[in-house]
Amino acid sequence: MSIENMIKTMAGDAKTASRGLRSLERGRKDDALLRMAEKLVAHRETIATENQKDLSAAKDAGLSAAMLDRLTLNDAVIRAMADGLREVAALPDPVGAYSGMWKRPNGLLVGRVRIPLGVIGFIYESRPNVTVDAAALCLKAGNAVILKGGSEAFHSNIALGKLLTEALNETGIPEKAVQVIPTTERTAVNALISLDDDVDVIIPRGGEGLIRFVAEHSRVPVLKHYKGVCHIYVDQSASFEMAKDICFNAKVQRPGVCNALETLLVHEDAAPGFLPEMAKQYEEAGVEIRGCPKTIDLAPGAVPATESDWPAEFLDLVLAVKVVGSMDEALDHIETYGSQHTEAIITNDYERSQRFLAQVDSSVVLVNASTRFNDGNQLGLGAEIGINTSKLHAFGPMGLEELTTTKFVVYGQGQIRK
Amino acid sequence: MSIENMIKTMAGDAKTASRGLRSLERGRKDDALLRMAEKLVAHRETIATENQKDLSAAKDAGLSAAMLDRLTLNDAVIRAMADGLREVAALPDPVGAYSGMWKRPNGLLVGRVRIPLGVIGFIYESRPNVTVDAAALCLKAGNAVILKGGSEAFHSNIALGKLLTEALNETGIPEKAVQVIPTTERTAVNALISLDDDVDVIIPRGGEGLIRFVAEHSRVPVLKHYKGVCHIYVDQSASFEMAKDICFNAKVQRPGVCNALETLLVHEDAAPGFLPEMAKQYEEAGVEIRGCPKTIDLAPGAVPATESDWPAEFLDLVLAVKVVGSMDEALDHIETYGSQHTEAIITNDYERSQRFLAQVDSSVVLVNASTRFNDGNQLGLGAEIGINTSKLHAFGPMGLEELTTTKFVVYGQGQIRK
Repeated sequence: MSIENMIKTMAGDAKTASRGLRSLERGRKDDALLRMAEKLVAHRETIATENQKDLSAAKDAGLSAAMLDRLTLNDAVIRAMADGLREVAALPDPVGAYSGMWKRPNGLLVGRVRIPLGVIGFIYESRPNVTVDAAALCLKAGNAVILKGGSEAFHSNIALGKLLTEALNETGIPEKAVQVIPTTERTAVNALISLDDDVDVIIPRGGEGLIRFVAEHSRVPVLKHYKGVCHIYVDQSASFEMAKDICFNAKVQRPGVCNALETLLVHEDAAPGFLPEMAKQYEEAGVEIRGCPKTIDLAPGAVPATESDWPAEFLDLVLAVKVVGSMDEALDHIETYGSQHTEAIITNDYERSQRFLAQVDSSVVLVNASTRFNDGNQLGLGAEIGINTSKLHAFGPMGLEELTTTKFVVYGQGQIRK
Repeated sequence: MSIENMIKTMAGDAKTASRGLRSLERGRKDDALLRMAEKLVAHRETIATENQKDLSAAKDAGLSAAMLDRLTLNDAVIRAMADGLREVAALPDPVGAYSGMWKRPNGLLVGRVRIPLGVIGFIYESRPNVTVDAAALCLKAGNAVILKGGSEAFHSNIALGKLLTEALNETGIPEKAVQVIPTTERTAVNALISLDDDVDVIIPRGGEGLIRFVAEHSRVPVLKHYKGVCHIYVDQSASFEMAKDICFNAKVQRPGVCNALETLLVHEDAAPGFLPEMAKQYEEAGVEIRGCPKTIDLAPGAVPATESDWPAEFLDLVLAVKVVGSMDEALDHIETYGSQHTEAIITNDYERSQRFLAQVDSSVVLVNASTRFNDGNQLGLGAEIGINTSKLHAFGPMGLEELTTTKFVVYGQGQIRK
């Protein structure tokens, strides 16, 4: 069978399975999730053995120590995956909730009820534990999922998928509810994103190259973000102590993630009192500052920023810094160079805090808090399958509810249209 | 300037305008809408003169009387457009509403606030009055809109666009908030749907060919439905009187629209008591019935249905009819041939009414009411820009709220991520 035909069959099977999942009661889904958790722990040696094949190939291919670390499924990581499954089981089921019901003048009772999306194609380059996390969230929201992981984690993903399927079988849920694509060929991605009759949404997670490829070629709607060029604006009324803590945390705590700070904007009245000490803290932590001329004056260790630094997602200990004459200049800068991902203001001015919240067109806008809080767990969504920076369906972090949609139900008594 | 460059400039202008619209208070938007209404009525002779150019060309091209009727902007149609603008002005503004706010254990206050989508590309083949309806809804929801109507309505659309722009100017709203593309070239559509940096969503309305073209080539997310293959299932417990009224209304009241009935499914126990009389009513109204063998037995005027009749959207006085052995057979038929648009059950059985509502995967599912109620106005959304049958963002009719999205706002007191 060609890869195209194989993927088409998988998508058809997923669609059939999704029909069975549509009105499955919560308990059945939770049983399956808990059984999955048991299985992972019970079969952790099998998982580790299969994972070893990926690790050996990765070493031969000369992958970095950091990459090898991300790829490793040891006891601790497997137990963490099992805990993740149990946490998803404990979350409320979004399916079936009415988000309103109203009576029309002709007596029709009209309501909106939450339903699963249907079939989700999840394409990722991340750690193999994402296989389990994504499967858990999709299943809990009543969706069938087709998973296409990175080739470097192929054996690990297949092993995990096999255990998940067994758990589905043992708890009487259609086994095609979770399918791992059994090939590393890129053609499989092309095939999956063309199947708009059977697949309801594609969620890609990984490097900007993968995501752009998917977004440009998919006939299926895509939820995604290309990158996070996150800004903090330090207002002249800010507490400099608070500003330093937040700006340090946002850049340094985990520089390789999409909600890390990439450009710091400082009001010119705050700059003299704030920037020299801030720059010193950054430099001690190994952060390279690329600044505008005024920044260079106040932070002698900084190097001059070039035009390409303003739209850059460094994902590293590098920070662009610009001194601005007003909040409007900061807003213009964010509008021009931002990625609509996460922006924060540090201020003690009421009017400017409200104006910043209202005017910044990003999925998460914060006052006096770190950009690192743009995360489904941190914002209270319970869990997260990804972050979407297109405006449609779900702008920002996506939890269980964002893996569902609503339909209208109408209770009539014989009404016809006049 | 090439058409590509012209559209790119228009999209950039729309994006700039959308920034101004983002936090525009309701009163300003309503003023503009009311001014638009005044202008249409005041300049109805100019509109009629420009419309005459389209009508002459359409006559020369041999368009049908029905098409000419749809194209005509006479006094009554112009006054109806003005009334539509006033109705949109009277609707609540969806922008700025919080759909929840909660406190996290670390003290962060997290809320979700409704915001405009940004820039909408609206591509349509419909009557020229759609130009005004779409512009009104997009503006009220705080969006800039780029309108590309059908070539047969070109002069009418340009004339309407000019008046809308004047109203924006006179009420101090960025005039690029509403732009009509000043060319009939199809290249303009190709250019518009490629601009994913500046355009947030594309809404196509018209024939299935246009919509498939847009959906397959757009890099911008698309909200659309291809067709409405709507079903009614008449259960054995149905009141046959009610069933006849509803089935007649759903097929005959306006057969050319997407929420009209296309396939009637009848339980075999209901068929002998229901179908002969129903068929007689249909035949008196000129409806051609294409039936399964059992239907033919009960309705001698029917012709045999072929496989191609089951997925067909006739948009005409033609109806496919099938007698089924059970509700499950009806559900399977809908799953196989339906378009996820609108489905209804006629029943007096409680359990089956609930099961039909739960299991049918369509944007609107009704009990004992006509499929013709799948409409934003009829369901109480206030107005409608179209119907979406993809699961993302808004499943079903889209009103003002569906032309917006939500972002997260976070009120902190210095919180950082541990």
